[in-house]
Amino acid sequence: MQGEIEKAMEHVLRQKITAYGAGRTDAGVHALGQVISFTADTKLEIARMAPALNSQLPTDIRIRRADEADGGFHARFSALARRYVYVALNRSEPTALLRRYVWHIVQPLDVDAMQRGAATLVGVHDFAAWANGTSEVTSTERELYECRLRRKGAFVLLIVEGSGFLRGMVRNIMGTLAEVGLGRRSPNEMTRITESRNRAKAGRTAPACGLCLVRVRY
Amino acid sequence: MQGEIEKAMEHVLRQKITAYGAGRTDAGVHALGQVISFTADTKLEIARMAPALNSQLPTDIRIRRADEADGGFHARFSALARRYVYVALNRSEPTALLRRYVWHIVQPLDVDAMQRGAATLVGVHDFAAWANGTSEVTSTERELYECRLRRKGAFVLLIVEGSGFLRGMVRNIMGTLAEVGLGRRSPNEMTRITESRNRAKAGRTAPACGLCLVRVRY
Repeated sequence: MQGEIEKAMEHVLRQKITAYGAGRTDAGVHALGQVISFTADTKLEIARMAPALNSQLPTDIRIRRADEADGGFHARFSALARRYVYVALNRSEPTALLRRYVWHIVQPLDVDAMQRGAATLVGVHDFAAWANGTSEVTSTERELYECRLRRKGAFVLLIVEGSGFLRGMVRNIMGTLAEVGLGRRSPNEMTRITESRNRAKAGRTAPACGLCLVRVRY
Repeated sequence: MQGEIEKAMEHVLRQKITAYGAGRTDAGVHALGQVISFTADTKLEIARMAPALNSQLPTDIRIRRADEADGGFHARFSALARRYVYVALNRSEPTALLRRYVWHIVQPLDVDAMQRGAATLVGVHDFAAWANGTSEVTSTERELYECRLRRKGAFVLLIVEGSGFLRGMVRNIMGTLAEVGLGRRSPNEMTRITESRNRAKAGRTAPACGLCLVRVRY
């Protein structure tokens, strides 16, 4: 996605552009509220920026709006918090229209048990056990401001907001919480997994399709 | 879609199958609650039917469930009512994730005016003015039990339930109501259009992507 956006920017602005995104969106992960910053020397009116970029982008990437920022602003480093929502569809009936946006789980989930497990992750922790590879970062400590479950009809949502996220972190948390919800693990295991700092102790990585970056706070 | 489903049925049931759908879903139109009936001579347990068909179908078509019906049941002719929802996204910001499921209308819609126009269509009317081509049917009289607008955040929904629908009927109603909502037509014109029985008096056909068959009642 970043490559596509930089290409569109270079076409519109006729200069080499490096764009910085606020939050991770691996392949198959969606974003409703991604923020991107870049520096450019242009006379293009800011109100024309989003339409001009959208005219060059594939239809599955849309720029919602563009604003000028202070010189010191950086989409990634200025961000105070990122909010992700992971959506599971928990019913026997499959879905055609939502197949790219939800993880379909047929067996009934015990959302209360998942909630108890999720609550253990709120606060400052070393999340090494929840990351897929940590070579790129020096510290694996992060703070979660919110980590909770919500059932809405047939949907089960994991809502997480934190200072930052390690690679695969939300999907690994959701994958493990699903095992809690299916009765294969106890909610108490979540704390032991975190304390182990060992990825092998956590459960499977939930599919990318259910994950969405919904908001970045500055 | 019907062709794909019949193909899957013939593969699973090893016999020639003719499937009947309850409601129109033209190309690009979605369905959450389509009902299909067919007759087959098989020993396959009914509980195995949906999974077996889904294993043969492309992922954008899912059978939610299958039930045995009385001999006289016909998905189309036994239906008492079909319910469609047309979804418009009414805001300046475009959408990537919902692009195949909504009609994006940038200018603000006057939903109250649209509602007044929609209300004139409830009841028994000759809907010839609202149909794209009427050669296939003898009568163009239908009954609408419900025809109303609802704003939900940035979304504007047209909710219609009726005994049956002519080709393009919901999309033509929505396209014309959008012109009412944009102030290009008065709500009073809706009655005059209906009475004219002349397709040329109505407005444009709204895009297929916003339309969804949500339920069929028996």
